[in-house]
Amino acid sequence: MLKLPALDPAAVEEKRGSGYPEPFKSHMGDRVKRRLGAACGLKNLGVNLVTLGPGGQSAVRHWHTLEDEFVYVLEGEVVLVTNAGEQPLRAGMCAGYPAGSKDAHHFINRSQKPAKYLEMGTNVPGDTAFYPDDDLFISWTEEGMAYTHKDGRKY
Amino acid sequence: MLKLPALDPAAVEEKRGSGYPEPFKSHMGDRVKRRLGAACGLKNLGVNLVTLGPGGQSAVRHWHTLEDEFVYVLEGEVVLVTNAGEQPLRAGMCAGYPAGSKDAHHFINRSQKPAKYLEMGTNVPGDTAFYPDDDLFISWTEEGMAYTHKDGRKY
Repeated sequence: MLKLPALDPAAVEEKRGSGYPEPFKSHMGDRVKRRLGAACGLKNLGVNLVTLGPGGQSAVRHWHTLEDEFVYVLEGEVVLVTNAGEQPLRAGMCAGYPAGSKDAHHFINRSQKPAKYLEMGTNVPGDTAFYPDDDLFISWTEEGMAYTHKDGRKY
Repeated sequence: MLKLPALDPAAVEEKRGSGYPEPFKSHMGDRVKRRLGAACGLKNLGVNLVTLGPGGQSAVRHWHTLEDEFVYVLEGEVVLVTNAGEQPLRAGMCAGYPAGSKDAHHFINRSQKPAKYLEMGTNVPGDTAFYPDDDLFISWTEEGMAYTHKDGRKY
């Protein structure tokens, strides 16, 4: 039994579902995350171990204003979708998304098997994201952030 | 052939050696890093793919003041050394080191085979590190940082 700062990911709670409104939430499919960084007490660096079932998506295709993101594929194969199109990424391949680069990105699992990857990013106050393909927007109010339509209407 | 933001780590230059003065530099042994985050243009998030030969060390045992660090073992087995002692970490295990936690840490490869892991951390201006086991100190001057003895003498 490992003790912190060491950690066996199997000991970390599985989180299903997403904070997106429908229909985006359902588009994520069978997606399970283990929040490894948070489990180690990290505040400025997020690290998740993600298992993405066939047909699932990592996120709505997006880019971040202030957060650097990086993904490393551990098992299976996913398709990376960016502004330039699609590229298959198999185990051992990776991708990095610099903050402020408007090249929106996400993974889709088009295979018949679950894929497993690490996703990581910096937690930066004031960060937001944009979703070029979808009518989805992050609206900030005094109460915090909320997903809305692009014209500001609530879902 | 993958195109950015996707990346095959095999396409990234291998970096050997370290910036430590001797004898610490030699203690690192057969350690090869590929700077994946930098290769993707990331500035705030460092991600390295490291291959550590038998007898090698990830770093001089240290802790960071402002940088969150995280490591994920991909192949082989390493020994994590912290203030509390040693724990073996095999492929699929991880460890996270919150900024400011004075629990100094490093990996040693005590096995007969190379080990492979991802190391990642936040790049934070003003970050420094301390080395409780060794006569090593990071001194800051107008010219930048330099490794010195704990009393400030140069190596």
